[in-house]
Amino acid sequence: MKGERAVVLFSGGLDSTTVLYLARSQGYHLYCLIFAYGQRHRKEIRAAQKIARLNKLPYKIVKINLPWTKSSLIAGKKKIPSFSVRRKNIPSTYVPGRNTIFLSYALSLAESIGAKKIFIGANSIDFSGYPDCRPAYYYAWQKVLKALDTRIKIVAPLLKMSKARIIQLGSKLGVPYHLTWSCYRGGKNPCGLCDSCHWRQQGFQEAGRSDPLKYQHVAGTVSRNF
Amino acid sequence: MKGERAVVLFSGGLDSTTVLYLARSQGYHLYCLIFAYGQRHRKEIRAAQKIARLNKLPYKIVKINLPWTKSSLIAGKKKIPSFSVRRKNIPSTYVPGRNTIFLSYALSLAESIGAKKIFIGANSIDFSGYPDCRPAYYYAWQKVLKALDTRIKIVAPLLKMSKARIIQLGSKLGVPYHLTWSCYRGGKNPCGLCDSCHWRQQGFQEAGRSDPLKYQHVAGTVSRNF
Repeated sequence: MKGERAVVLFSGGLDSTTVLYLARSQGYHLYCLIFAYGQRHRKEIRAAQKIARLNKLPYKIVKINLPWTKSSLIAGKKKIPSFSVRRKNIPSTYVPGRNTIFLSYALSLAESIGAKKIFIGANSIDFSGYPDCRPAYYYAWQKVLKALDTRIKIVAPLLKMSKARIIQLGSKLGVPYHLTWSCYRGGKNPCGLCDSCHWRQQGFQEAGRSDPLKYQHVAGTVSRNF
Repeated sequence: MKGERAVVLFSGGLDSTTVLYLARSQGYHLYCLIFAYGQRHRKEIRAAQKIARLNKLPYKIVKINLPWTKSSLIAGKKKIPSFSVRRKNIPSTYVPGRNTIFLSYALSLAESIGAKKIFIGANSIDFSGYPDCRPAYYYAWQKVLKALDTRIKIVAPLLKMSKARIIQLGSKLGVPYHLTWSCYRGGKNPCGLCDSCHWRQQGFQEAGRSDPLKYQHVAGTVSRNF
């Protein structure tokens, strides 16, 4: 493990930054893949670059063009919805195929540089119900990697952790949460209203820590058992 | 099936053109995905565009940047090797992650437009030993699609067909083989020496048909049971 190469899918958000620090603490030589897939703003890409540079890690920004998607996460499409406990369906922020595309590029890079691990910050607990953040999806991916005769494994250490646990773990690892960016909207300060801000704020509250970011709106505590 | 939308991964080569004509004959409304992944030449992309237009099919050319790959199929990298019966390893023309990236974009498009099928011309018989052209790889992919709760299926009708059978099928379907491009090298005429030319020439010979393309070199018949 020590000195072994690994690819990390890195968005500059809370989860992937925690994973980056976790993998670094385990001694991996990390190669960061950052994706520009037409997000509404460059704030998360800039956050990712800043954190990669801070850690002196090589990174590559991969441009992806998905003109067919109607996701509200893509610039010029629908408005970003605010968090709602009543929502039952997959929200409009879901980008079809996104994690699959990210993992396929990571596979290409990992095979090319001889990395045996792909780290991803996917999280199935405090999240928005995206199908590509669930354990079954990652088990299926392992089968693809096996069928290719690679010895590459996907490592998703946060998959079953709550946001609070992730923040507690990251805090121990020294994650610079003030440099991370989670908000879907991308204003001067995080909005505090979108799903991503909601889960992040609740996570910090439950972890008993204060989020170094200043929000435009601070959400009330929402019971996790709604 | 009739009138149902489907995505076809389309390179303008012999296999994917045959698949396109097969899917069209089954009544699907096809959306072609053509990839510009840094190939040494534009000939196959131009062939794909020409055939898509001939069939009045919508197509999208997706640009992919894989700066880390050392594949000889990518411009500016190693020389394309000539076919050799003695070769045991995966040849240098293999692009790590390529079919996985193609399929992940196809998944994104299929989910976005409500297509339930992704057609791919992968072929495990007369091919160069690429790990992403084998049946096990496609079975594993079906599990990924299932885990995402999509009803999308990958259809790889040529997976277990010999090149000769593919050519016989395509000939019945009226595939314009004179418009297809298979050669890895991309000269004025196909080289006749690379793996792709080798399998194509042998396929036409075994199918008892003449290839409408004129080769720079015509390979001798190589026994399939070497």
